[in-house]
Amino acid sequence: MISKNKIKYLCSLKIKKYREKNLRTILEGLRLIEQAIDFSANIGTVWITSEFKDSNKLFLKKIESKNVNYDIISESDMKIISDTKNSQGIIAEVDISKYLQPISQIINDNLVVIDSISDPGNLGTIFRTCAWYGIKTMILTTTTTDPFNFKCIRSGMGAHFYFNQIISDSNKNIINFLNSNNYDILCADLNGDNFSRVNPSSRWAIVFGSEAHGISEDFDRFNKVTIKGSNSIESLNVSVSAGIILEHLVNSK
Amino acid sequence: MISKNKIKYLCSLKIKKYREKNLRTILEGLRLIEQAIDFSANIGTVWITSEFKDSNKLFLKKIESKNVNYDIISESDMKIISDTKNSQGIIAEVDISKYLQPISQIINDNLVVIDSISDPGNLGTIFRTCAWYGIKTMILTTTTTDPFNFKCIRSGMGAHFYFNQIISDSNKNIINFLNSNNYDILCADLNGDNFSRVNPSSRWAIVFGSEAHGISEDFDRFNKVTIKGSNSIESLNVSVSAGIILEHLVNSK
Repeated sequence: MISKNKIKYLCSLKIKKYREKNLRTILEGLRLIEQAIDFSANIGTVWITSEFKDSNKLFLKKIESKNVNYDIISESDMKIISDTKNSQGIIAEVDISKYLQPISQIINDNLVVIDSISDPGNLGTIFRTCAWYGIKTMILTTTTTDPFNFKCIRSGMGAHFYFNQIISDSNKNIINFLNSNNYDILCADLNGDNFSRVNPSSRWAIVFGSEAHGISEDFDRFNKVTIKGSNSIESLNVSVSAGIILEHLVNSK
Repeated sequence: MISKNKIKYLCSLKIKKYREKNLRTILEGLRLIEQAIDFSANIGTVWITSEFKDSNKLFLKKIESKNVNYDIISESDMKIISDTKNSQGIIAEVDISKYLQPISQIINDNLVVIDSISDPGNLGTIFRTCAWYGIKTMILTTTTTDPFNFKCIRSGMGAHFYFNQIISDSNKNIINFLNSNNYDILCADLNGDNFSRVNPSSRWAIVFGSEAHGISEDFDRFNKVTIKGSNSIESLNVSVSAGIILEHLVNSK
C-alpha cells in the first residue's frame, strides 16, 4: 500500500527543486534498478505492481537477499508516478545525497569534467561511457544540466551509481582544485592538437564542453585536443567525442 | 502563399508511408537546411515566415544564388506543418529519391552497415559521425529504422545529404554483395578481437547492430571486434561505439 501523500511526494521528484530539497530521485525500469542495486546505490523502497511481482520472482529473491524493501502498488498508482508511456511496473526511490557535493577531495587520478552540457541525453550517454572506461569521479560545472533529471538517468543506464562522486561546483573552484593537485588539464575542442598524439601524465582531467558554445572561457588557457575529421560537417556529437578521446586516454597506454 | 492541399501533403510527410510514396521528406531549421543546400541536396521549395525573412537576409541571398525557390507562409500554417515546439520559421521539402536504393553498385571502399538499429536518434548520430569520418556510403538492413524519420534527420544534422548513397536491402543481398566484391567484413560486438589491434584491408565494411539484440545471426560468421572496458556496465551506446571504432579504421593508418 502507498499513501496519497507518498504518491504526491514521489511525483514531486520529477522536478529538480524537489530532488535537491529531498536529495532523492526515482529510478524506473527493471534493468536500471537492478544495475543500481548491483552498484550498491542507496535504494529506499522499490514499488512494483502485482503483475510485475508474478513475472519477476528471481529479481525479488535477489533484492530480498540484499535487504532492499519492496511494496506492491496498483497499476493506476504506478501510472501516476511513472514518467514513461509504457511502465514496466517497477520504480524505486534512491538517495542521491552522496553525490552532487562541492569539490573538496578526490581520490582518483583520472577525471572527466563536464562544462555547460545542457542535453540530459548526451550527459547520460557520457556517464555510461565514463563508467565503461572505469572513470570513478565526474565533475560538473554548475551550468551543466541536472544529472538526476529522468532523461539523463535513463540514458546513463545505471552508470550514475557506478561513480564514487558526481561533483558540482563553479569553474573557478574546479580549476583551483585541479591546478593545486597537479592534474594535467586537457580540453576537447574543434581546434587543438590531434588527441591521438597527446600523452598526458598519469593524473589527468579531460574537459568536454557544450556542442553549441564549446568550452567556457575559464578553461581557455589549458591544452586543447581535437579529433581529425573530413571537414564535411561542423562537429561530432559531444558524447561520441568523449568516447573517442577516453578510448585513447584510458586504453592506449 | 500555400494551398490547403499542399499543407496537407507536407504534413503527410511526417508518416513513413507517405515519405516512401512521394520520395520526399521535410527538413526543419536554418542550420539543417543550410547544411543540406551546401551538400547539394535536391531541395524543392523552402517555406519561411515573414519574420524569418526579415531577420535572415544573407541566407535568402545565398539560396537565391543557388536557384533554390522560397515562399512565404503564415505563422499559423508554419505551426501546422512544423514538427517542433518552437519553430524557427523555416522548413524545406527535399527529394530523397537518390537514397534508399537496393544494393547494386558501390564506388567506395569504406562502408558502414547498420543492422536493425531502431532508435532514430542513435541512427542520426551515427550518420553524423560517419560524415565526420568521410564515409560516403551507408548500408541499412531493412529492419533498421527509417533514416528519413524526422528525429533521425534532426540528430544527423545534415549528414544524410553528405552521403552518395543510403542503401536499404536485405541481409542476404548485402552479404552477397560485400562478399563478391571482396570487402573485409568486421562486426562490432561485445565479444571479439580488440578493435585497436585489427588492421583491415583497404576495402572494409563495419557492421553495427542493435543495442538490445546485437548483430543479426546472418552476420555471425564474420570477424568480430570489441572495445575493451572496465566490465562495470553492460555496454556502450551504439553511436559511441561507432565513433570509437571509426576513429581507428579511418584515422590510425
